[in-house]
Amino acid sequence: MDSDLTQIEAARKHIITAEMQTVARDEHRDPQWICDSVALGRIVIPANHNHTNLHAHGVGEGLSTKINVNLGVSGDQHNYANEMKKVELADNMHADAIMDLSNCGKTSRFRTSLVQTSPAMIGTVPMYDAIGYLEKPLEDISADDFLDVVRKHAEDGVDFVTIHAGITRAVIDTWLKEKRTLNIVSRGGSLIFAWMKITGNENPFYEHFDELCEILRKYDITISLGDAMRPGCIDDATDQAQISELVQLGELVTRAQENGVQAMVEGPGHVPIDQIEANIKVEKTLCHHAPFYVLGPLVTDVAPGYDHITAAIGGAIAATAGADFLCYVTPSEHLRLPDAQDVRDGIAATQLAAHAADLAKHVPGAKEWDHKMAVARSQFDWDRMFELAIDGDKARSMLEAAPPQEEGTCTMCGQMCAVKTVNETLKRMGLTV
Amino acid sequence: MDSDLTQIEAARKHIITAEMQTVARDEHRDPQWICDSVALGRIVIPANHNHTNLHAHGVGEGLSTKINVNLGVSGDQHNYANEMKKVELADNMHADAIMDLSNCGKTSRFRTSLVQTSPAMIGTVPMYDAIGYLEKPLEDISADDFLDVVRKHAEDGVDFVTIHAGITRAVIDTWLKEKRTLNIVSRGGSLIFAWMKITGNENPFYEHFDELCEILRKYDITISLGDAMRPGCIDDATDQAQISELVQLGELVTRAQENGVQAMVEGPGHVPIDQIEANIKVEKTLCHHAPFYVLGPLVTDVAPGYDHITAAIGGAIAATAGADFLCYVTPSEHLRLPDAQDVRDGIAATQLAAHAADLAKHVPGAKEWDHKMAVARSQFDWDRMFELAIDGDKARSMLEAAPPQEEGTCTMCGQMCAVKTVNETLKRMGLTV
Repeated sequence: MDSDLTQIEAARKHIITAEMQTVARDEHRDPQWICDSVALGRIVIPANHNHTNLHAHGVGEGLSTKINVNLGVSGDQHNYANEMKKVELADNMHADAIMDLSNCGKTSRFRTSLVQTSPAMIGTVPMYDAIGYLEKPLEDISADDFLDVVRKHAEDGVDFVTIHAGITRAVIDTWLKEKRTLNIVSRGGSLIFAWMKITGNENPFYEHFDELCEILRKYDITISLGDAMRPGCIDDATDQAQISELVQLGELVTRAQENGVQAMVEGPGHVPIDQIEANIKVEKTLCHHAPFYVLGPLVTDVAPGYDHITAAIGGAIAATAGADFLCYVTPSEHLRLPDAQDVRDGIAATQLAAHAADLAKHVPGAKEWDHKMAVARSQFDWDRMFELAIDGDKARSMLEAAPPQEEGTCTMCGQMCAVKTVNETLKRMGLTV
Repeated sequence: MDSDLTQIEAARKHIITAEMQTVARDEHRDPQWICDSVALGRIVIPANHNHTNLHAHGVGEGLSTKINVNLGVSGDQHNYANEMKKVELADNMHADAIMDLSNCGKTSRFRTSLVQTSPAMIGTVPMYDAIGYLEKPLEDISADDFLDVVRKHAEDGVDFVTIHAGITRAVIDTWLKEKRTLNIVSRGGSLIFAWMKITGNENPFYEHFDELCEILRKYDITISLGDAMRPGCIDDATDQAQISELVQLGELVTRAQENGVQAMVEGPGHVPIDQIEANIKVEKTLCHHAPFYVLGPLVTDVAPGYDHITAAIGGAIAATAGADFLCYVTPSEHLRLPDAQDVRDGIAATQLAAHAADLAKHVPGAKEWDHKMAVARSQFDWDRMFELAIDGDKARSMLEAAPPQEEGTCTMCGQMCAVKTVNETLKRMGLTV
């Protein structure tokens, strides 16, 4: 493609890019329809010109639900070798995206090797890296400095960046008028808030949004508009603070697109089941159908240790209602930086939630996968079941840890297996199974 | 209470039983309303006169969602000591019900000690026990023999029994006209089907339904009308076979209630998300608002090893739409008899799904639990968080396995903790946190 154009600029000129072709092929869709949807901003294809080994993915309306894997070091745990193992796991399990959320020390080397290694879409939150990259305390950082960090990430080849540009003075005023139980739980959002209060300035990314877009446009980085005010507990769901910020993000979607930048919007957070659909619908209207990227939502606060499940429930419901992109949550949420097992559990839970939503949304190709599994079950074809399973290695090891007496069955029912009983009875009746 | 009456008979005479008082207190509801709902058959209180240490629970419309734990031995794994450990685990984790699904050898001794030990509602599937109890091959068992097995379970004190009375000749004809991918996956249903085909007889529980009810009425056992035709894969969901049987079960609900027997109805199975609400609504209309007891539903077939999660998604959605009782599913579903860890994972997943639905349905008392957890989080009160968590021991061990440098935080964010940053900033602003 013409490397001067972003995907949305190309689409508006009716140019079908190589990335659009890839997305169309993977999704069993017409390239022209993909191109039209990108032009409208309903689909984004995050693809930094510098991420040369990227396998392009589309995120948005009518496409299969995508999943993201967070990893990266923290101040307490900064073993990059461990993080590279998680990258390998994410790639092997076919995660669509990886976000490097490293927030301690010099992060460029890991980010660069991540971009070089992984065909997944790579995302970052430049704000996390500001203090480490600039080597200054928060209060000495200028708005220009923040843009420099974004520029560095852009050059390094990341495909999308989370920018908390919506937490403006006006949004903060709205929030502080209403009592919240957990205030801000967004890491990037909390840093912007602290910086605004220390310096007395407006949100730097909001104030300098056009300059920001200029950087993003140059590399075709998709802006992922972060939700600093996402609810961190059921009490705070869908409240004034959250929705005021979402109104603000809707304005910024339009401004980004006017600047030739692809935009998506990040969403909650902790939300009870009965509010999830409303959250998706209101995002789609306020943000002009920009793709919606949700973290969970977690449908209850009371299950630390099992938040990959509270998030899988919310994610499946959200994606069924129209969310396009699920950020995984691991069992270690609220407790610690995830280890490799937590990452694996989180990926599997999010993948099955995304696929369950794709079934419900009748995404082309989704149903065939389940059909194949059901046929394998009816035939007791265990190898085929493990081949088709989201995590065949785990399933196989569970079966093999408890071998049945009669080959073919499992120890749940053994001789009493319903499928076996019925297959035999139908055969006796002269019916094909 | 007058031990000659079942709960539904007492309710029809406007008698508020001790069990109704217990349910009203636990559920923050008016005893009169509980009594009225029991009279209408919208709430059941499974409570065998012989289960003397039972803590009574109500199952039905307007009440909190209940959960059931399956356990029991199979031909391949018949270690009763292991099963008693699972009972202990279920009771410690406050499961509302335990079903003993033992299907090999003489099961009475375990069943009796389960009833004596556990305050949970105890359920069984007498059909599983028929061959072992009667010491005859399936083809030699008579309809009367089947009723003898039910009588034995009734005397032993079980509070509810699953009876697959709805798989009649007519339902089988409907099924065989349409191709199914997985035919019958119900263990009890498959045995009835095989017996009907071997003997040429009608379903014995359907044909002798009034005699069956006489046994159940005597002890006040709730009948749980089993769904032999529940879909075992996404392909087969909500099909002719399933819904024909459900029509049949609706007729049997009325006949049971006319006989003074409390009735609930069992439901699927494997169902895609977009069909779950319809399944609940149609059960409620066809079965006259009898409580609905669902197994999952599992929202995709492709995740063996993670079916506690596919079921938690379906269960949360089902209970939000009106399902009253969730049967847990463990990670070992489709693979093996669950071990103790599988049971723990299954209970936790089902509990959080049930609670998420209770939040969504605004069940009295549900929201307060999450509020307390959010307050504990805002105060970094880890002991309180673990006290409130569904599985505090697991959460604590995960945190302690990765101790942070700064006490109070965790290794996910450490110094970068959003809650900490915002609490400090608000304090600097002179605002209370």
